[in-house]
Parts: sequence; structure tokens; C-alpha cells
Amino acid sequence: MRLVLDAMGGDFAPAETVAAAVKYARETNHTVLLVGDEAAVRQELEKHDTANLDLPIIHAADAVGMDEEPAMAVRRKKHNPMVVGMQLVKAGHADAFCSMGNTGAVLTAGHMVFRRIRGVHRAVLTIPFPNAQGLHVFGDVGANSDCRPEWLVQWAHMLAIYAKPVLGIEEPRVAFLANGEEMGKGNQLIKTAQVLMAQRNHLNYIGVVEPKEMMAGQADVVITDGFTGNILVKQSEAVANFIFQILKEEIMAQTRTKVGAALARPAFRAALERLTNREHSAGLLLGLNGLVTVGHGRSKREDIYYALHTTARLVEADVLEKTRNKIESLLHLTASRENVL
Amino acid sequence: MRLVLDAMGGDFAPAETVAAAVKYARETNHTVLLVGDEAAVRQELEKHDTANLDLPIIHAADAVGMDEEPAMAVRRKKHNPMVVGMQLVKAGHADAFCSMGNTGAVLTAGHMVFRRIRGVHRAVLTIPFPNAQGLHVFGDVGANSDCRPEWLVQWAHMLAIYAKPVLGIEEPRVAFLANGEEMGKGNQLIKTAQVLMAQRNHLNYIGVVEPKEMMAGQADVVITDGFTGNILVKQSEAVANFIFQILKEEIMAQTRTKVGAALARPAFRAALERLTNREHSAGLLLGLNGLVTVGHGRSKREDIYYALHTTARLVEADVLEKTRNKIESLLHLTASRENVL
Repeated sequence: MRLVLDAMGGDFAPAETVAAAVKYARETNHTVLLVGDEAAVRQELEKHDTANLDLPIIHAADAVGMDEEPAMAVRRKKHNPMVVGMQLVKAGHADAFCSMGNTGAVLTAGHMVFRRIRGVHRAVLTIPFPNAQGLHVFGDVGANSDCRPEWLVQWAHMLAIYAKPVLGIEEPRVAFLANGEEMGKGNQLIKTAQVLMAQRNHLNYIGVVEPKEMMAGQADVVITDGFTGNILVKQSEAVANFIFQILKEEIMAQTRTKVGAALARPAFRAALERLTNREHSAGLLLGLNGLVTVGHGRSKREDIYYALHTTARLVEADVLEKTRNKIESLLHLTASRENVL
Repeated sequence: MRLVLDAMGGDFAPAETVAAAVKYARETNHTVLLVGDEAAVRQELEKHDTANLDLPIIHAADAVGMDEEPAMAVRRKKHNPMVVGMQLVKAGHADAFCSMGNTGAVLTAGHMVFRRIRGVHRAVLTIPFPNAQGLHVFGDVGANSDCRPEWLVQWAHMLAIYAKPVLGIEEPRVAFLANGEEMGKGNQLIKTAQVLMAQRNHLNYIGVVEPKEMMAGQADVVITDGFTGNILVKQSEAVANFIFQILKEEIMAQTRTKVGAALARPAFRAALERLTNREHSAGLLLGLNGLVTVGHGRSKREDIYYALHTTARLVEADVLEKTRNKIESLLHLTASRENVL
């Protein structure tokens, strides 16, 4: 397998991206193409033992900063690592592209280079999300702020394909996110999506879930618009940080609680590990003619190493081809129904 | 002051509602009109010392269950405690109405009995929400699933009035919730609301905040649509429960962490107190010709007692009349601008 890693993507690039690539290549014997500033990447590579590893550097110097307006920057800087890296995949030199860089920039570059799969309304950004039972996949988490109901229905089918290799299950339970658990709940978008879904349902579709049920793990695939999804993910992070901050303040207020917390530290660590969900934190931009995975800007080498593993698993599961086939069959279904009408 | 309490509202009514009313009346010497099933309420009252307290019972037997379709139930059961209680306020027999019952039922009854203030596009449900600095007020949290930008702009003005007595500040910082902190971020609704807001701005308007900034306490008033707001509040609760559940599981896994957690227990308790925000948990249905406050269905006597205090504070601050005046002045502003154009 050959994966492209955006060596310049994320807050700790290229040191952490290169370190992750070395670790991953050593373990898997896969090729990792490192795209970025050649001198900077080479300097990092020299810090590691890379004997017998296939880690070619592809020079692309026009870096997109985390603070640049991403769409503009990517369009202006044609020789940036994202565009160059994706072109390698498009030309058949690699199987997938992985980045910890600005999500908006990845979205723009992905659309520019790969374009959408024929019949896909919009590409969707999806991530694995922790719940009380383990994980579910959740999207859209930010690719589309304003959505149409038929997009959500298509994403339900697409995310069900993605959920299988990520969650390791055969018949994922698919639901829409709503502000109540009863059928018919939701805003107009979700209400209409429910009606459309009831019409063409080859999925294990279970209706709507509200956040409590989602966090209880009652669905394997949860679909919402990219505005709500993005805010939900950010609010979840913010609430988690808020709770740990408050706990810390209260713990530091007394000697007794300080001593207690020191003893309980392994439990705090283990809980944080489960929440940060490091092994399954990379998201997927689904619906383009190329596999594009996206990690958090704050990712360290361990996270990036896992992101590469996630990317490889999606290649192995042939998610891209299966998505194309599913969309094709949905189009045929719609066409034949329209012929009947 | 005279407050109406829906004696049958919430999971623990009438025992907890009556106990709260007794405690509140004893402390304030205010009148609390208890609306509900007379026999049941009297039975609860007899368990308390009510000497010198003014706690009249108003019989209204058609209870709305927590599991009934609320709008239907309220319309069908005209003699339910919500409608009867609000009519007492409307007729001038009391200053405000407070309920721990089904929020949808309160919304329907509120609109039926009070109707909207002239010029108000839609009533908005708002609550105080905890953040790292203390509290902000947040709405809409569920009255309107599909919104128009001009509603959000009006709510910004209305919630700024409400924020003053609740937060005890004079010039609340007002923001829209968005999926990014930059000006122009958001879905079409939030983008248009930002443009409208920039046109007629007599507020301390600071633009958009994303969840991280909201939870850091960077705004005193945060406005969103009722679908996003409802889901955000529910997700915050679900994440908090999830974190405490995970922590508990990890703590119970080892003797060392069990001992540590026992010592640290006061810190956990104090943190939970801050999160549950008991003293400021009652929400307000704002925009109707009557003051209607709503508490959580799970409220116990202490919560309901605080909800009555919140209600009284809003009466004292004359939030209803100030809202009417603000809407009136906004209407004049719009009218005069239209004349100019």
C-alpha cells in the first residue's frame, strides 16, 4: 500500500508527521509519501532510523497556514502539499491522502483535485465518535453548513458503508439526529429527510435519535447537517474541557481532595484516553473520487500514526469503490422509480 | 408578589412542588397559588407547617402527562393546571406562572392564553447556561425548530433585557452561535442574522462565538435557532453524564483509585453542583404577554424553590414591560427607516 501524508499539516508538523510516518512504515512496510518542504522534511527524517523504509519526499513548498483563509490559500498556492499530495493519488501513484491540516483547506483541495463522485450531491465529513457502547460514526461535521434533505439521505447510505470497516459491524443501525426521540421530531430538514428515507430504505434505518440516545450508543451511524454536526462536536469538546477544568479547580482547593485525586490519577488518565479516542480520531471526507482522511490539528505522532492506520483500513475495505457502486445503484433506483411515475 | 406554581408539573409533583412553595412562601412572605388537583395538593400541604402562609389551592384536574403529545393534550384538556394557572396571571390575579411540566405543553398553553407581544415574531425559550466565568443566557433552546434571521435579531435584543437581572450586569455582550469564530461564519441563517444585526445595533454586539468561546464565557447572551440550541443543551448534558459514567467505571476498576475517589469526593460534589447550576436552572419563555418560567422535569424541591426565586426576580426587574417597550422601539425604528427609504 502507498499512502500520502501531508507532512506540513497540523500544529506539530513536520516533526510529528515525519515521526508518525517512520513508525507506521516500520510496522507495516507500507510506502508513505511525505509531501512538503523537502529540506524541512529531510531534516526530520534524518533524526530517525529509516533503513529499509520507503519514505519518499515529494517537494511542495507553498504551505497553507492554520490561520489563512483556507479556500483562498489553496486556490492561490497551487503548489501546496495538499493539492500536490492529492494529485499523486489521482494519478495513481498512491492509494489515499491523509492530512492533519486545516479542514477547510482539505475540503477545498479535495474538491479541486478529485471532484465529486458522479451522482453524489455533496461530499460529507465524518468522524468516529465515542459513546457508552464504544463508537458510532457521525456526519456531516462541517463540510456543508446548509443542507438539503436528499443530501442527508445519501449520506446515510454512504456512512453506512464507511461504518462497516471502522466499527467492524455488518448491519449498522442508521439514524438522524433530532431534538427529540419521537418519529416526526426535528426541524424541517430532518422531518423531510425522515420522509424520504422511509421511501427508499435498504438500510437498517432506526429513525431519529436525540443526543442522550446517541451517547448511549443506540445508533452506529448518526446523520445531521454540517452546521449542527460541527457545533455538536465542538460543544462536546468544550464541555469535556470545562468539566475537567472545574474538577481540577475543586480538587486543588483542599489537601484531602488533592491526595485523593493523586491516588485516582490512573482512572482519570484511562477516562481521558477513552474520551480522546486516539485510535479512531481521524475523519473521512467521503463522496470525492479519492480517499481523503483528516485528523485534528493538535495531533501528535501517536495520533497521526493511528490516522495512517485508519486510512489504510479504508483503502483495504475498498470504501471508495463501494461508495461509487452504492451511489450508482441509488441513481438507478431513482431513475426507475421516476420512469414508473 | 403573587406567583402561580403548576403544582402538578414535573416528575415529582405534587410532593416536591408543594414542599418548594412552602419553603419559598415562608422565606419571602409572597403568595404562591398552587394550581392542580385539589385533593392531592391539600394532602401534600397538610404535611407541612403552613401557618401564616398564603398558599391558596386552585383546582384544575385535567393533568397533562409527561408522555402525552403536549400540544394536543393542552388543547383537549382545557381545565389543565397550565391553562388555568396562566389564566390567573392573565386576569391579573398573579404576576407570573412557573412550571416544571412538559416544555411543549407550556409552550402551547402559553401561546393559547397569553398570545405574543405585538411585534414579536416568535416567542423564545431561554435558559442560563454555565461557563468558565459563571453564566450566560442562551436561546432559543427549543421553542422554534425552524427560524428566520430577523427572529434571531429580535431575540438578541430580548435576551439582552433578560440577561440584566439574571446575570446582574448592565451591558451584556451579545453574540450568535456559529461553527467558527470569524465574522461571516455560520449557516445562511446566522450569516444573514449577522448582516441584519450590523444594520441596527443598539446592543453590545460582539459578533459570533463558537462553542469553545461560549464555554469560556466570552459572551453574556448567545443566540441560536431552537433546533441547534435544543440539541446543544441535550448534548452538553449527555456528554457530562458520559464523562462521569466513564470516570466512575475507571475508578471502580482498582482499589487504589477507589480510595482516591473517596477522598476526592467533596471535589466531585462541588464540581457537580457548579455544573447542575441549581440556583439558576429555570428558563424563561420570552415574547408572550405574560411571564412564564420553566424548570426541568426532574426538579426536586430545592430546584423548584430556586425557580420561584428566579421567577420573582424577573417580575421585580419588570422584564415583561421592558421587553414590550424594546419591541415597540424596534418597530418604530424599522418604520422610520422604511419611511426614509
